[in-house]
Amino acid sequence: MKIDAIVDSILDSYKANGGLRYHESENFPNRQVLIGVVEDLRSLLFPAFSCSAFAESNNIRYITGERIHRVVRLLTREIQKAMRYVFSTAGRDVSGCFDLAEQTVYSLLREIPNIRGTLNKDIESALRGDPAATSIEEIILSYPGIEAIIVYRIAHFLHVNGTPLIPRILTEYVHGKTGIDIHPAAEIGESFFIDHGTGVVIGETCVIGKNVTVYQGVTLGALSVKKNLLGKKRHPTIEDDVTIYAGATILGGDTVVGRGSTIGGNAWVVSSVPPDTSVSL
Amino acid sequence: MKIDAIVDSILDSYKANGGLRYHESENFPNRQVLIGVVEDLRSLLFPAFSCSAFAESNNIRYITGERIHRVVRLLTREIQKAMRYVFSTAGRDVSGCFDLAEQTVYSLLREIPNIRGTLNKDIESALRGDPAATSIEEIILSYPGIEAIIVYRIAHFLHVNGTPLIPRILTEYVHGKTGIDIHPAAEIGESFFIDHGTGVVIGETCVIGKNVTVYQGVTLGALSVKKNLLGKKRHPTIEDDVTIYAGATILGGDTVVGRGSTIGGNAWVVSSVPPDTSVSL
Amino acid sequence: MKIDAIVDSILDSYKANGGLRYHESENFPNRQVLIGVVEDLRSLLFPAFSCSAFAESNNIRYITGERIHRVVRLLTREIQKAMRYVFSTAGRDVSGCFDLAEQTVYSLLREIPNIRGTLNKDIESALRGDPAATSIEEIILSYPGIEAIIVYRIAHFLHVNGTPLIPRILTEYVHGKTGIDIHPAAEIGESFFIDHGTGVVIGETCVIGKNVTVYQGVTLGALSVKKNLLGKKRHPTIEDDVTIYAGATILGGDTVVGRGSTIGGNAWVVSSVPPDTSVSL
Amino acid sequence: MKIDAIVDSILDSYKANGGLRYHESENFPNRQVLIGVVEDLRSLLFPAFSCSAFAESNNIRYITGERIHRVVRLLTREIQKAMRYVFSTAGRDVSGCFDLAEQTVYSLLREIPNIRGTLNKDIESALRGDPAATSIEEIILSYPGIEAIIVYRIAHFLHVNGTPLIPRILTEYVHGKTGIDIHPAAEIGESFFIDHGTGVVIGETCVIGKNVTVYQGVTLGALSVKKNLLGKKRHPTIEDDVTIYAGATILGGDTVVGRGSTIGGNAWVVSSVPPDTSVSL
Amino acid sequence: MKIDAIVDSILDSYKANGGLRYHESENFPNRQVLIGVVEDLRSLLFPAFSCSAFAESNNIRYITGERIHRVVRLLTREIQKAMRYVFSTAGRDVSGCFDLAEQTVYSLLREIPNIRGTLNKDIESALRGDPAATSIEEIILSYPGIEAIIVYRIAHFLHVNGTPLIPRILTEYVHGKTGIDIHPAAEIGESFFIDHGTGVVIGETCVIGKNVTVYQGVTLGALSVKKNLLGKKRHPTIEDDVTIYAGATILGGDTVVGRGSTIGGNAWVVSSVPPDTSVSL
Amino acid sequence: MKIDAIVDSILDSYKANGGLRYHESENFPNRQVLIGVVEDLRSLLFPAFSCSAFAESNNIRYITGERIHRVVRLLTREIQKAMRYVFSTAGRDVSGCFDLAEQTVYSLLREIPNIRGTLNKDIESALRGDPAATSIEEIILSYPGIEAIIVYRIAHFLHVNGTPLIPRILTEYVHGKTGIDIHPAAEIGESFFIDHGTGVVIGETCVIGKNVTVYQGVTLGALSVKKNLLGKKRHPTIEDDVTIYAGATILGGDTVVGRGSTIGGNAWVVSSVPPDTSVSL
Repeated sequence: MKIDAIVDSILDSYKANGGLRYHESENFPNRQVLIGVVEDLRSLLFPAFSCSAFAESNNIRYITGERIHRVVRLLTREIQKAMRYVFSTAGRDVSGCFDLAEQTVYSLLREIPNIRGTLNKDIESALRGDPAATSIEEIILSYPGIEAIIVYRIAHFLHVNGTPLIPRILTEYVHGKTGIDIHPAAEIGESFFIDHGTGVVIGETCVIGKNVTVYQGVTLGALSVKKNLLGKKRHPTIEDDVTIYAGATILGGDTVVGRGSTIGGNAWVVSSVPPDTSVSL
Repeated sequence: MKIDAIVDSILDSYKANGGLRYHESENFPNRQVLIGVVEDLRSLLFPAFSCSAFAESNNIRYITGERIHRVVRLLTREIQKAMRYVFSTAGRDVSGCFDLAEQTVYSLLREIPNIRGTLNKDIESALRGDPAATSIEEIILSYPGIEAIIVYRIAHFLHVNGTPLIPRILTEYVHGKTGIDIHPAAEIGESFFIDHGTGVVIGETCVIGKNVTVYQGVTLGALSVKKNLLGKKRHPTIEDDVTIYAGATILGGDTVVGRGSTIGGNAWVVSSVPPDTSVSL
Repeated sequence: MKIDAIVDSILDSYKANGGLRYHESENFPNRQVLIGVVEDLRSLLFPAFSCSAFAESNNIRYITGERIHRVVRLLTREIQKAMRYVFSTAGRDVSGCFDLAEQTVYSLLREIPNIRGTLNKDIESALRGDPAATSIEEIILSYPGIEAIIVYRIAHFLHVNGTPLIPRILTEYVHGKTGIDIHPAAEIGESFFIDHGTGVVIGETCVIGKNVTVYQGVTLGALSVKKNLLGKKRHPTIEDDVTIYAGATILGGDTVVGRGSTIGGNAWVVSSVPPDTSVSL
Repeated sequence: MKIDAIVDSILDSYKANGGLRYHESENFPNRQVLIGVVEDLRSLLFPAFSCSAFAESNNIRYITGERIHRVVRLLTREIQKAMRYVFSTAGRDVSGCFDLAEQTVYSLLREIPNIRGTLNKDIESALRGDPAATSIEEIILSYPGIEAIIVYRIAHFLHVNGTPLIPRILTEYVHGKTGIDIHPAAEIGESFFIDHGTGVVIGETCVIGKNVTVYQGVTLGALSVKKNLLGKKRHPTIEDDVTIYAGATILGGDTVVGRGSTIGGNAWVVSSVPPDTSVSL
Repeated sequence: MKIDAIVDSILDSYKANGGLRYHESENFPNRQVLIGVVEDLRSLLFPAFSCSAFAESNNIRYITGERIHRVVRLLTREIQKAMRYVFSTAGRDVSGCFDLAEQTVYSLLREIPNIRGTLNKDIESALRGDPAATSIEEIILSYPGIEAIIVYRIAHFLHVNGTPLIPRILTEYVHGKTGIDIHPAAEIGESFFIDHGTGVVIGETCVIGKNVTVYQGVTLGALSVKKNLLGKKRHPTIEDDVTIYAGATILGGDTVVGRGSTIGGNAWVVSSVPPDTSVSL
Repeated sequence: MKIDAIVDSILDSYKANGGLRYHESENFPNRQVLIGVVEDLRSLLFPAFSCSAFAESNNIRYITGERIHRVVRLLTREIQKAMRYVFSTAGRDVSGCFDLAEQTVYSLLREIPNIRGTLNKDIESALRGDPAATSIEEIILSYPGIEAIIVYRIAHFLHVNGTPLIPRILTEYVHGKTGIDIHPAAEIGESFFIDHGTGVVIGETCVIGKNVTVYQGVTLGALSVKKNLLGKKRHPTIEDDVTIYAGATILGGDTVVGRGSTIGGNAWVVSSVPPDTSVSL
């Protein structure tokens, strides 16, 4: 039968290209589950804006506890799978993965109040920075920049605490939704605001200070993408109080944009900019 | 227990940062419900392209009536919530919100035939403008520019009729899907065509004439984002019959691109352009 | 009643603008069904990364066969509808559409092993090209460029084999998810890598060689979009081993970027570039 | 592999026992679809008690039309499948099945007002007969007897109009829910009331007059179940105004319970009972 | 069109038979919502046996609180609707219905520990009474008698506290699942056990003592069902420690089965039975 | 707050009545999962009648393999949980439970062809025995007796192979749907037919021969239910070719109904009946 022949040829191709590892799906982090976890974490951060359940004073303790419990159960397992896969590929012992994963999840949950504090500053920064913004609620409800920063701050925490694979899955999920691509390893200070946001790229070794504003289409990238640069600082440093207008490109690991500077729209910056400087196209 | 301590710390943070208003979720517009309403409105506009139900001559009256009824019920409640929230924050009386919301929804529904007329001109403009387009059906089925314009025209009507918060939620929803960010307050004439579209930003006080075409990555933005500009015209005016190629940036509330002009790819325009002029990088 | 009057006015507008064709939804390809088919095809290509079902050695044959069977059933019907619509509009006989559609689906399924081979080279190219990439698994799980290329390679095969409408629906689906807009008619060689990707546009008549790398915001477009150019080559040719950095724009059907060249970030290229050349802003 | 061997043995058993007919599921009526149709028909009969959608004056016309349209589409196809299967087994021509099926569905829908009238009399009979019943609404909401009679009256209409297989599937569906087993071929007059109902069996050739009341565990059955009795009257006739108490058994095609009689609990009746007679255990 | 004519005839029949009340569905209790509430209440009573969510020491407080909150929200609204409907039909003031409904729900929730205590005795009685029962867990997991008693004890509490319509909907729901029909107004003491259960009917004014066991097909019914008996005691009294075997029928409001008696299978009892007596067929 | 106090009182009641075991739900078999397994097993037995997926010659091998795989995965885990719970309660070692469970599932799957053979004989027996039955397909689609026997034959196999708890959950599931209560430990020969079925009870130690027919309301029960009878034969033996009419009761472990006998409706049998005898009320 026609289908049988196709099955055989595809199974042959699994053997030739990818082998068994290509079909043991239980060993890999599950993207759907992780998206559910992100939604639970968002609901913990901003309970009034959750679509999945009605929150009010009467049930806020219970709904919070149940969300935390669900995150512990689900995220621990996904992190464990990611760790097992990466550790075993590297020849490392995997026996401690569950404990390590659970520890990471608890650390993340304990960090939630701090992340809320930081996000509140990010939101206030949006409110100050955008004449069109009329309230904190409007910003949480409809600014893609805030959505991207929420997920980045969660993913960054996981990355810093040694979780492999998953931080990248999380930031790519929100990249797909917002067009904003922030590598989880980038370091970003408080009161960060991204307006519009589509096309923003913030690379792996970026360091961004406090009170920085970034518009759509801004790239904070590398001058060169040679593989041997792995682990080296390849992306720029942006100091406090910098504004970078739409379409600007800032490249290079030694490039520093000094405190208080403004980078104009579509500007091309491949070397450092002193503090309090205006750079235009 | 570990979870209990985390619950307490998160509840404390709700009190400190955001307070009760952060968890009375029933008072806020619900994004999921609004997305459902958008899908119903799209189905009213183009019934043949609805995925949710099969439409044919036999049932078109009934399916239309039921969609209208569902929009009345659901959208009225969401607009009422948005109005109550904004009015009460502003110290205004909220007792008339339901009637006002319902009136707005009926106005929108009465406008549907006109919106259809305008959208048909937008689609014809796409058919004329894109050599790759082969039929009206292909454009409705697969052009993200059309998807963004559909939602913009709905959101703009709601904005003009005094609905707070919700127009922005709608345009951000379609921004997430298409990468096209049109502020609901912008004014856009008929026969408008956006090709490819990713990264297009059209600001709050833009005024766009008839028969304008815009490519991906075009910004129609503000020269400055000082908060005290709130309510002033900060974004450009584009007159009839203008084409703006990919990546062009046009900034400023006094900037007028004259009728029949062409703005070249990646062009940077911060002052007015006379009619019938070609501007290039 | 108020609703009745609205129903009547909308039904009138269906008659005036669009007529019956606007509400015979069973005759059009169904986007939801096609998205399901894309997920089945992705699961066939990379079974370990499917979220919808657990795959392991024990069931890989069965799950593969069932996926193939489902694709045959569902995609055949959608292609048949697209063909019937386009053929009947063109006055062509539609009696052979089912057979033609089924034949196309079987061809696509027989091509899956080859597509897997090509995609593996694309993935290896990403692994070589991005210092931040740590494993093949990370790339499949989280690189939007790969997601876009997977769907492009499927859509391109269908386009080349004469399927109307549907290839475009598929590439627009993934455009919405990734911000990467590749026309299904473009020709792209093996070992193709798109990094970050938001805002990439690759036009209908592009020809791209082997081992090409493209960054976010790159446009491979047309110099002019006059409708009479339909069918002519309007987009550039990119030879083997070319790298095109973020925001570069390359336009024109006669523009050839020679083998081994590098196009710098934000560069504007409207005429041919010799081999082994570096072009910068 | 273990699973492969099991697959082979089960496939062998399909060939040996049942053959192809056992796995061409598309040719058989689909129980799930039919249950959905029953719910739509119930909603047509008693719109206020539908759980699936909110009905009010504003949308009653539209929701009614859409329900009718869905019944036409779905039930026609199921009846067509049932007819094709039975006709082709009997060597009859199947080309007219679709038209015949559609005609049957339209007849059923035209009968809905009459069925509503009859059911209203059944409900009033329950209100009169049960001291515990407090309102018409309580009876529709919570009496299993009414649920069984609703489905019987639909199934009986289909049976009388020549629909094979499906009437039985419908009555068995409600038998599973209520424990009341009424053969769709039985003839039952108006103002029929079944109280409690579990264990009631009403056989294929029963004839029941008006204003009859039946309690739980009543059997109206056959004296003998010889296969050669197929098509003969094997079950009793119950005349108007008869009450049959719990657990009574009345058997035989020639057995007539005369008008106005009462059959006591657990009574065993195998010959006719004159009018206005009380029979007890 | 054919459908239009059918719509008209059905709408006419709504006007003729039932009037407006037949299509204002929002005013009636919603069976689906009530079934969800029953599942929440069952999960509160026996959290280990809930299918809807995983319960463990870590989350038992939170999952319990969230279940209680959901019951308060949903059941209050359903009881309010039932009260409004019944009160307004009776010409009573409906303004206090919400408070009354909420009060009832809180009373029910406060009663949960007592209901658990009573149910534990019922389960122990099953364990003692059925040689085939091997553990408490098996009984909770698989005995329909226990399922019926759980819902009866909830429905009885609501009935006694003045909730109209809903108790009957609850007991009919479990009647449909188990074939056991207990009127919510019946009074049943602790340590009650129903084995097998199909066909059991326990009437509105039954009074059942402690430690009673009942088998399948037992009817505790009325001698006569004259409507003027409404409110009178029409069903028997069963004293402590009585066993009633399968198929027995006990009828009449003055019939008392004395403490410690045994009623044999299929027995027919219409007058009182002294204590410690064995009655057989 | 009111909810908090209720939570505390319910948590206290968990401690007092039931303790921890009452809320560690992951350790108990999950009824929902088991119902899904039953549906998969039914689809394996009669693929044409499955509602969940379309089966045809092209995919029958794949759909069969995938169903088997799913049963192996899901049922193994449920049986393991049941075994762990029962073994640990009994102080037995639980380390081998997974292997034992998996072995049991494979045995069941290998038995499927034999079970199909037996069920085919049961169905033919229904076709012969019921004048109203018109085809094998009608019987599979709509006879509750067949539904009950299917699940009994699966549950019986599991019981005989040492699976605790789960066989009873399965037979109670189908008891709820059909009103037919067959204990999984009963032994029932081939060509068994139950007509109508509501109220049928077949006890734990029944032994039923070949070619037996049973009508609704038949009890094959115990004379006494003293707990010390656990493990003894308490229910009757029915030899080959016996017919038992509606409502008959046959009790006692020593009661044997001889080959070829007929037990009349409502008959009460507590001692043995010789072969070829007719017993009537």
